[in-house]
Amino acid sequence: MRSGFLFYDMFVVEVIGTMVFAISGALTAANKRFDFVGVSVIAFVTALGGGTIRDVLIGSLPVGWMQSKWYALAVFCGVVLAYVFYKKLQILRKSLFLFDAIGLGVFAIGGFQKALAAGIDPVYAIICGMITGTFGGLLRDVLCNDVPLIFRKEIYASAALVGVVVFFLFQNVFLLPVVGFIIAVSLVIGIRILAVKFNLGLPKIKID
Amino acid sequence: MRSGFLFYDMFVVEVIGTMVFAISGALTAANKRFDFVGVSVIAFVTALGGGTIRDVLIGSLPVGWMQSKWYALAVFCGVVLAYVFYKKLQILRKSLFLFDAIGLGVFAIGGFQKALAAGIDPVYAIICGMITGTFGGLLRDVLCNDVPLIFRKEIYASAALVGVVVFFLFQNVFLLPVVGFIIAVSLVIGIRILAVKFNLGLPKIKID
Amino acid sequence: MRSGFLFYDMFVVEVIGTMVFAISGALTAANKRFDFVGVSVIAFVTALGGGTIRDVLIGSLPVGWMQSKWYALAVFCGVVLAYVFYKKLQILRKSLFLFDAIGLGVFAIGGFQKALAAGIDPVYAIICGMITGTFGGLLRDVLCNDVPLIFRKEIYASAALVGVVVFFLFQNVFLLPVVGFIIAVSLVIGIRILAVKFNLGLPKIKID
Repeated sequence: MRSGFLFYDMFVVEVIGTMVFAISGALTAANKRFDFVGVSVIAFVTALGGGTIRDVLIGSLPVGWMQSKWYALAVFCGVVLAYVFYKKLQILRKSLFLFDAIGLGVFAIGGFQKALAAGIDPVYAIICGMITGTFGGLLRDVLCNDVPLIFRKEIYASAALVGVVVFFLFQNVFLLPVVGFIIAVSLVIGIRILAVKFNLGLPKIKID
Repeated sequence: MRSGFLFYDMFVVEVIGTMVFAISGALTAANKRFDFVGVSVIAFVTALGGGTIRDVLIGSLPVGWMQSKWYALAVFCGVVLAYVFYKKLQILRKSLFLFDAIGLGVFAIGGFQKALAAGIDPVYAIICGMITGTFGGLLRDVLCNDVPLIFRKEIYASAALVGVVVFFLFQNVFLLPVVGFIIAVSLVIGIRILAVKFNLGLPKIKID
Repeated sequence: MRSGFLFYDMFVVEVIGTMVFAISGALTAANKRFDFVGVSVIAFVTALGGGTIRDVLIGSLPVGWMQSKWYALAVFCGVVLAYVFYKKLQILRKSLFLFDAIGLGVFAIGGFQKALAAGIDPVYAIICGMITGTFGGLLRDVLCNDVPLIFRKEIYASAALVGVVVFFLFQNVFLLPVVGFIIAVSLVIGIRILAVKFNLGLPKIKID
């Protein structure tokens, strides 16, 4: 029953993660002065883009979110919340940051699990996990005509990588998926907090 | 025989819509001073990108346009027409706008139909319809390194939404798909004309 | 045994092509001051993006590179080489250019072959070949927020087109796939060298 716990509860966490990512996308689009359609598309893409790319790559089609109305509802709620509480959310950015970190961890581990369940090699399943966690934001930035944040920002994709690898070890070596899941997500959150607080970054190639 | 009419005739209209969208893509690329390859790629992506994304999302692969040479031919003709009649087409922009509105309506309803036929939930089939109608132009703008027009322009994606919903009601509630198709496409065209004429837009989140 | 030769040997050449394309992507990203994650993602996308899009379009999922660890390894080696030999590689750009031309020819012909083997119509298989050879670079430029090079650069996609068509003739008319493969790749390289040397371009639509 290793995955029995994870599947039901992760669905709930994933729907919440979808809403939080949708809010973050909607706020970005609103700052760009996009109209309601633009804000909704960007929210949708930010929230579900990473999982969509993973599903397409592993051939799990129709894409996952089409199988439950909860995902569309979560995005819709995210957009409505962003419209109604626009000013408050700007102030709440710090708590949003926390949710974003939770979403990052949950999405990455969930994406990794789904790829593994589809028979993908673990190395590529880890890559699928990172794609699930980060490519929604990548698509958001491409559609907004920005240079993607994950290429410049403090440790982000690498926090997801650490989370997925730690979860992988707990699940397969220690056979403790639930404990591993909690530890891994906490790790992702912790790394993100430290990275932002101390403005940490990864090495760049030295030019000149 | 509800869809008997629609399938054959919509193929013809879709091929024409493909050509019109290809012309619009080719003109945009030509204005950017792209060479023949660039113009062709942009024309192809503008014309067939929306349907491609829909087919990928619902898992109808190989993508639809690979099943008929008419689509490649339509894009090719669109590019040739754009090269030969470049100046005249710039003046004809108003009639192009009309074709674009027809294409938007036809593509959106056709995409909705195809998703529904593939067993997709109506809510997501409506989203698939909007994607089919508008994401070709979205990809065109991303490839041209512009902020996508549909995020800023007068009512566009929302016109497609109205068309798809109206068609859905006629098809499933009144059981009149042919009448519904004609009314829905006319509605999309009418909304587009009004939106452009009176420079209508959707509400934006107020910032300040 | 027409394709007996091609499949094994092309795998080796493709892995090398993957590494060369990864190096080119990594150098572009490094020049943009991206961090290690950014450089790796861009390298991955540049090297495997074209084949990924082809696999998705023809419905050959999970995508090809997930079936062998050699592809991930090739990208990883490309990134490491780009980091270690950054300055030397900048000077070696001319030899990189040669590898890029080899990669372009090999990827285009390999992509064409794979599409044909999947039952795709030859006209669209040729388009798949061009996509395989050029869309990795296209995605790289989109992610780096540049106007795609293939839309402005000297003859590039068209060199791939010539290579694929020549290979197609040799394979199906003269029944000489091996000879055709060598001639076609040499042609791609030759066209690229001439195009860069004499700064050749394709016609553009005249504006004014």
